[in-house]
Amino acid sequence: MFVLASASKARQKLLDQIALRHKVIVSDFDETQLQEPDPILKVKLLAKAKADSALKKLIEENHALNTYQALLGCDSLFEFKGEIFEKPIDKEQLISRWQRMSGQSGFLHTGHCLISLDNSKSDRESISQNNSCDGVVSTRIEFMNLSNFEINKYASTSEPYNCAGGFAIEGNGGLFIKKIDGCFSNVIGLSLPWLKNNLEKFGLSRLLLDR
Amino acid sequence: MFVLASASKARQKLLDQIALRHKVIVSDFDETQLQEPDPILKVKLLAKAKADSALKKLIEENHALNTYQALLGCDSLFEFKGEIFEKPIDKEQLISRWQRMSGQSGFLHTGHCLISLDNSKSDRESISQNNSCDGVVSTRIEFMNLSNFEINKYASTSEPYNCAGGFAIEGNGGLFIKKIDGCFSNVIGLSLPWLKNNLEKFGLSRLLLDR
Repeated sequence: MFVLASASKARQKLLDQIALRHKVIVSDFDETQLQEPDPILKVKLLAKAKADSALKKLIEENHALNTYQALLGCDSLFEFKGEIFEKPIDKEQLISRWQRMSGQSGFLHTGHCLISLDNSKSDRESISQNNSCDGVVSTRIEFMNLSNFEINKYASTSEPYNCAGGFAIEGNGGLFIKKIDGCFSNVIGLSLPWLKNNLEKFGLSRLLLDR
Repeated sequence: MFVLASASKARQKLLDQIALRHKVIVSDFDETQLQEPDPILKVKLLAKAKADSALKKLIEENHALNTYQALLGCDSLFEFKGEIFEKPIDKEQLISRWQRMSGQSGFLHTGHCLISLDNSKSDRESISQNNSCDGVVSTRIEFMNLSNFEINKYASTSEPYNCAGGFAIEGNGGLFIKKIDGCFSNVIGLSLPWLKNNLEKFGLSRLLLDR
């Protein structure tokens, strides 16, 4: 079994899409603790912090570690002209961001931290240090030109408030994205090709497409 | 109401994703009639033929035309090194194609033909000629390196046999696509940004995000 250290429904759906059976353990890490201006370093550190926090929970809650083979922490943010756009805090911020993003482009960065648990150790430090790998995948996103009417209509739905950058490509937001350049699933919340490559490194490919 | 001239579940889901209420009318057009070696011209002609055929059905079946505002026909194919890959005909063909596609790239082309019905005419020729627009959207797709084991595993599922090119980016196939360059929804079966732009031209934006 695989552990996803994220409450994101979009990430859970991506794992379902590739038939990767998983359990969700949401980390306790307080993201506001981390002040880091570099977007790529920030998602990398947050993904690792979430993975470590979920691993700690897994050990503390006395889960039988040998029933789990791997654990993944992820964090996404949108970089727009050097600024970091995380989940919008309110409607006003969302509308003002979309007015700037309309017709422009930016980068969706997702940090990944994968920890292999496929061994008999139960000491958090030795697991996390010896059997983990991390990586950031970045996808360029180009937006359509949007009218204020369209922006206001989108801002009146709940969808954008739960997404880094204020859009869900797999939802209504798909209408506003002209093109992307890079990994597609990365925009939804985790890069499936990254996960495939790194599960292979740990000899855990059997977890994929497991029906 | 909007009419989708396609039996594709993936296209229907894309319309659901953008809250575009629709009725499906599958065209009777026999695609094997059309022998056209140019991939872009081929999807364009097939999209138009499907739209025209569904419009004919709509009129013949005495549907009240004024309850429908627009009709869309689509056709997709995958172009790989100058060859046209439509839905694979059998497992042998699928495996041999994937062995070539592994680590390489190609283009997913989708032809679109949108007909506006937002008027009182009921004569097929005048509707189709005066109120239609068409366009082909192309997205570059780069595949992961796949082992024969992975190719055989994918070929043992039903998913790839119903897809142009033999893969579904929104399904298990998402694991095998390293990156795309272009419109994402186009790879699934129809370009949402193309549809948005062309509904706007006909003054039919109100059909989008209609809850």
